[in-house]
Amino acid sequence: MKLITAVVRPERVGQVKEALFRAGISGLTLSRVSGHGGEQEIVEHYRGTQVMIEFREKVEFRMAVSDAFAEAAIRAICEGARTGEVGDGKIFVQPLERVVRIRTGEEDGAAL
Amino acid sequence: MKLITAVVRPERVGQVKEALFRAGISGLTLSRVSGHGGEQEIVEHYRGTQVMIEFREKVEFRMAVSDAFAEAAIRAICEGARTGEVGDGKIFVQPLERVVRIRTGEEDGAAL
Amino acid sequence: MKLITAVVRPERVGQVKEALFRAGISGLTLSRVSGHGGEQEIVEHYRGTQVMIEFREKVEFRMAVSDAFAEAAIRAICEGARTGEVGDGKIFVQPLERVVRIRTGEEDGAAL
Ligand SMILES: Nc1ncnc2c1ncn2[C@@H]1O[C@H](COP(=O)(O)OP(=O)(O)OP(=O)(O)O)[C@@H](O)[C@H]1O
Ligand SMILES: Nc1ncnc2c1ncn2[C@@H]1O[C@H](COP(=O)(O)OP(=O)(O)OP(=O)(O)O)[C@@H](O)[C@H]1O
Ligand SMILES: Nc1ncnc2c1ncn2[C@@H]1O[C@H](COP(=O)(O)OP(=O)(O)OP(=O)(O)O)[C@@H](O)[C@H]1O
Ligand SMILES: [Mg+2]
Ligand SMILES: [Mg+2]
Ligand SMILES: [Mg+2]
Repeated sequence: MKLITAVVRPERVGQVKEALFRAGISGLTLSRVSGHGGEQEIVEHYRGTQVMIEFREKVEFRMAVSDAFAEAAIRAICEGARTGEVGDGKIFVQPLERVVRIRTGEEDGAAL
Repeated sequence: MKLITAVVRPERVGQVKEALFRAGISGLTLSRVSGHGGEQEIVEHYRGTQVMIEFREKVEFRMAVSDAFAEAAIRAICEGARTGEVGDGKIFVQPLERVVRIRTGEEDGAAL
Repeated sequence: MKLITAVVRPERVGQVKEALFRAGISGLTLSRVSGHGGEQEIVEHYRGTQVMIEFREKVEFRMAVSDAFAEAAIRAICEGARTGEVGDGKIFVQPLERVVRIRTGEEDGAAL
């Protein structure tokens, strides 16, 4: 299983949700975050030290998926989130050892 | 070490905290999230595409524990969070390579 | 690659950002969280059960880095966040399997 985290533009949240849903992924957790993506243009020199000045509001999607769904999830996120301009966001894939559905105690495949 | 993440109903936060604490787990990070748990009943057809419509407020617990505490943490979360109705939440267990206590520089077992 | 998460005091966010930036790390995601760090002094007995009473506002930094940058990131976070008083925060290091830049589809090293 994988835990996939994607940080996207707030204005693309609806499109990302819809693309994920069409790909068969409906277990999702969202949170509001702020971020900086490494742009050099928004860095300033202030009294000799470089200061990173701009953080933008983003939305983070988190989803646990079986290995078989990881590729489709990544494709759906890119499809929903891409505008072609800098700042479209980033996807992180991590190993996931165990999932438990609290209501039933079901685990892993049965809990996804 | 494991990083355990649990998404639960906001109204069960107090009971989850208490169950964790009784299980000996007191290092915790909480955040407000919103989520969808895969219910098919809250999906609608709108101009031919399926739209996932309902996201509910949830609270996410995150805790780093030694391997020996993982099982007790999961049991405590289930005990505090379970109502028996759909939407009770989900637990995710991930590998954790290193923990550092910022104040002292202590690591891993000594930092938990 | 590693995913480094650090929970720090809100009043040290600026110093942590600056220390990270000086260490060459500018891809960052921040979120507001609340936490408890295991202090025994803020636990009370209430009708026979122990209740964990105090959660403090914290800020969580999340950053994906190449293995070569992990040590420098941890050092920078400690440098920016440490006051020497309890509650300075904690750092968690997790394995990261894949990173995708949504705009271009670049992956891993090319996406960091
Ligand atoms: N290395 C990283 N670690 C953690 N979060 C990151 C990282 N890089 C980017 N992010 C998050 O993703 C958001 C969007 O990043 P962004 O799309 O600007 O990435 P980028 O690599 O600079 O790509 P682009 O060149 O298209 O701008 C950031 O605001 C931040 O929240
Ligand atoms: N696969 C998943 N990935 C990420 N987050 C999830 C996933 N499944 C559920 N969640 C999160 O957990 C919350 C609660 O999920 P929920 O309890 O409805 O899970 P479920 O599998 O549908 O179980 P139930 O059948 O008991 O409703 C969701 O609102 C969402 O935030
Ligand atoms: N084991 C843990 N799992 C998850 N989050 C934790 C854990 N320990 C601490 N945190 C988070 O880090 C924040 C700061 O923790 P804190 O600095 O008090 O850690 P500590 O181990 O008690 O160190 P100190 O003795 O310096 O207080 C907490 O408010 C919480 O959000
Ligand atoms: Mg960028
Ligand atoms: Mg559900
Ligand atoms: Mg503490």
